[in-house]
Amino acid sequence: MIESITPALGKEKGTPLYTQLYRYIREAIEAGKLPSGSKLPAIRALSQHLGISKNTVEAAYGQLVAEGYVESKERGGYLIQPLDELWNPLPVQYVEMNNKCGEASEVMNSINRKDRRESSFLPYEFRYGDIAFDRFPYDIWKSCLTQSVNDAAAAAPYGILGYGDRLGHLGLREELCDYVYQSRGAVCSPDQIFIGAGTQYTVSLLLQTLGLRQAEFAMEEPGYNGVRSVLAGLDCRITSIPIEADGIHVTALEQSTAKVAYVTPSHQFPLGMVMSIEKRQRLLKWASASDALILEDDYDSEFRYGSRPVPSLKALDYDDRVIYLGTLSKSFLPGARLSYVIVPRRLVPVMTERMANYSCSVSPMIQQAVWLFIKQGHYGRHIRRMRRVYQARYRALTDAVSSTMGERVRIVGDSSGMHILLRVPGRDAMELVALAEQAGCLVYPAAKHWSNPDAEAREFVMLGFGGMQEDMLREGVRKLSMAWFAR
Amino acid sequence: MIESITPALGKEKGTPLYTQLYRYIREAIEAGKLPSGSKLPAIRALSQHLGISKNTVEAAYGQLVAEGYVESKERGGYLIQPLDELWNPLPVQYVEMNNKCGEASEVMNSINRKDRRESSFLPYEFRYGDIAFDRFPYDIWKSCLTQSVNDAAAAAPYGILGYGDRLGHLGLREELCDYVYQSRGAVCSPDQIFIGAGTQYTVSLLLQTLGLRQAEFAMEEPGYNGVRSVLAGLDCRITSIPIEADGIHVTALEQSTAKVAYVTPSHQFPLGMVMSIEKRQRLLKWASASDALILEDDYDSEFRYGSRPVPSLKALDYDDRVIYLGTLSKSFLPGARLSYVIVPRRLVPVMTERMANYSCSVSPMIQQAVWLFIKQGHYGRHIRRMRRVYQARYRALTDAVSSTMGERVRIVGDSSGMHILLRVPGRDAMELVALAEQAGCLVYPAAKHWSNPDAEAREFVMLGFGGMQEDMLREGVRKLSMAWFAR
Repeated sequence: MIESITPALGKEKGTPLYTQLYRYIREAIEAGKLPSGSKLPAIRALSQHLGISKNTVEAAYGQLVAEGYVESKERGGYLIQPLDELWNPLPVQYVEMNNKCGEASEVMNSINRKDRRESSFLPYEFRYGDIAFDRFPYDIWKSCLTQSVNDAAAAAPYGILGYGDRLGHLGLREELCDYVYQSRGAVCSPDQIFIGAGTQYTVSLLLQTLGLRQAEFAMEEPGYNGVRSVLAGLDCRITSIPIEADGIHVTALEQSTAKVAYVTPSHQFPLGMVMSIEKRQRLLKWASASDALILEDDYDSEFRYGSRPVPSLKALDYDDRVIYLGTLSKSFLPGARLSYVIVPRRLVPVMTERMANYSCSVSPMIQQAVWLFIKQGHYGRHIRRMRRVYQARYRALTDAVSSTMGERVRIVGDSSGMHILLRVPGRDAMELVALAEQAGCLVYPAAKHWSNPDAEAREFVMLGFGGMQEDMLREGVRKLSMAWFAR
Repeated sequence: MIESITPALGKEKGTPLYTQLYRYIREAIEAGKLPSGSKLPAIRALSQHLGISKNTVEAAYGQLVAEGYVESKERGGYLIQPLDELWNPLPVQYVEMNNKCGEASEVMNSINRKDRRESSFLPYEFRYGDIAFDRFPYDIWKSCLTQSVNDAAAAAPYGILGYGDRLGHLGLREELCDYVYQSRGAVCSPDQIFIGAGTQYTVSLLLQTLGLRQAEFAMEEPGYNGVRSVLAGLDCRITSIPIEADGIHVTALEQSTAKVAYVTPSHQFPLGMVMSIEKRQRLLKWASASDALILEDDYDSEFRYGSRPVPSLKALDYDDRVIYLGTLSKSFLPGARLSYVIVPRRLVPVMTERMANYSCSVSPMIQQAVWLFIKQGHYGRHIRRMRRVYQARYRALTDAVSSTMGERVRIVGDSSGMHILLRVPGRDAMELVALAEQAGCLVYPAAKHWSNPDAEAREFVMLGFGGMQEDMLREGVRKLSMAWFAR
């Protein structure tokens, strides 16, 4: 037990006391001043010592727990956790800018004004697709990248400098097999996997190599427009199937003539619900009975807060009909541009034959570095840590929305992933997005994920929270609330 | 003038004297013992000093010139060139293994036995697609990669860790504009460029974003089967147009109903000829008259030996009809998986609008590092150096083929690029490839690049030479000659 600590609180004007306390302890842990294995002072003792409320201490400790610095033991106080080797977080700072989608913004905006993702910098960007860049282990990643180029340069073979394995780095495919088995319950072998530069690319390649382009596709309505764009761009026939409270409307699917269904069972995109077990089984039965295939997009299943993890559809795939789409864009880095596909065993021969004419689209240097990152155990630790970070952000966001906006909005989404929807009855999302922008907030109209948006679809606003720290989330929600409802 | 040098020649059994001398001097230059700006001893003087023939000294000097260590001045002797900053070549060694295309080899081979690219290691691999990995500036590249991650980690913005600009890194697109203007005579602006993970992907994306899939395509016969596979995989209609001595048969093209022509004007793939200026102009006229588009694949135009560079078709594109396909796979690293497309100005609005629904497929970390590599001048220097390296390899290969195989084969290909074809009249390439493999040599049947290979097509064997040093090329040719003709 650390007897006490004595930060000079109150010096930073405008920063809440609990944030100052949290930062002080965090920096002390990072600097090794508070060693791992020791316990933080008891809440009551520290609040008396510093002359601040117990709530303040509790909030600071809660943040440290959420971020993995400290573990809360039942009746045992708060235990400081070991820092990962090489783990060297950035100094605390707000994410003041973010990814440069905006670089081509003038042209983009003039054409695609409704998609605010491309707009210029705003102070509060609820950007969908941002991860917690402020918590990313840069030093470890850098050492993996350097090591991979060193390995390649040290001597022949020069494997990772060339085109690389057509299906993707073999070691990485092996690690991905282990990973999906352990975390998603799906059993597969490396020859069932191919790696590609993002889900849009892997879907496009599936259409080419498996000859799926001719098939009729069922898409969730609403559903991920990134994949719908790929299907539409390749002139696929698409049938939209409505979403119910527990996922895709299987009866409607059964009545269609679709031969491939694209679904997001773990976290419906964008509505956020988990597909029920009953529905999963009906879906698999439909595929068997109709000689159909299922594309399961499992884009952010790593991040579920407060409920047990849901196994993947692929884990239940008794009849070898599920094509599993995985990605490292949420669980690791979008900038790795690394997704992967697990094809049913019976499709391995045709896939392998057709892939013999395609080069892999992900740099083997990146693949090698990611492989090192996973193999050395950093990926598992990173996900565990990020789960707590995102959980804290999720709670900060939804608590702030509830307390600030109350009954005027409905939060749509399960406690998982890195985005929520807000439904604002009677208001048009385009107007809300414009008001938000004037108040310095970036949020999105969700209607583009409907193939045929109705009035209800236009009431949905999308907020990403992965890239924003709690303070910013709370402050951003306050701005939104004032912009939308202060009349 | 360096008065003399005194290597201990003859110690390395089985290595030619000129190679030993060349290595000695090269290492001395790299170690700074022979400073830049000074001159090597005169050929006659050194041959007398060492008691070796003038030819031997000349051959060693020639190799140093080819690799850029030394410049031959007219009547002024051999001047040692400055080493690039950070340039740290590997110790001389043979490329004993190479890219791990073979990792999935068992499966691949069982299905696609005719494509020997996937086979296991052989001592002499004339692998198409290999660059001179032994001459790649690893230290510079590593520092660019590290710098890019450092830049991202140092503070927000976290641009290159996210999805990045949909069209590709803006700075890199600007550098590519400058590059194609200076080296290929084509004028464009960054908004006309998009970056993608390899030419197969960029072509696939073009089909999606420009709605080209519906059009009828003209492909060269023979022509690059990597692109033909993409078109076929997406059910495009393809018309094959024969190749004449100076490029595609424009009259046959004019008589077709094609609306898009895929051509390789700078270095026809795989036959190697340069398209004549007259034919280029007819091709452009055809496009105007037929309201058609031209896809110009300029995959290895950087490497022309002994003749002046040929401007790109895009440089002559008065009517805004050429889509230019560039790549860094040959001129830099295949492992970067970085290609780019320049679209005609009039297609910028539709491309930009459609691209708003696609993420860029190349890791922004790689893009940032490549941008640094180009911006700091390394790319230009690297290409100049590699041109000399490949020229020396090209000459070693073709000289060896001429002197060893004589009239029994015909070398097909202009003096450029990183591959040649050998035509062996009356022999079947599959048999030649099998004999070569037994003798430890990897070469390829070229027939897969014909959509409909006739008997003539089956006489062509393809040899890549980019990844093999001269000694290996000569020795490999000797093995091939014995395997094919020693009866």
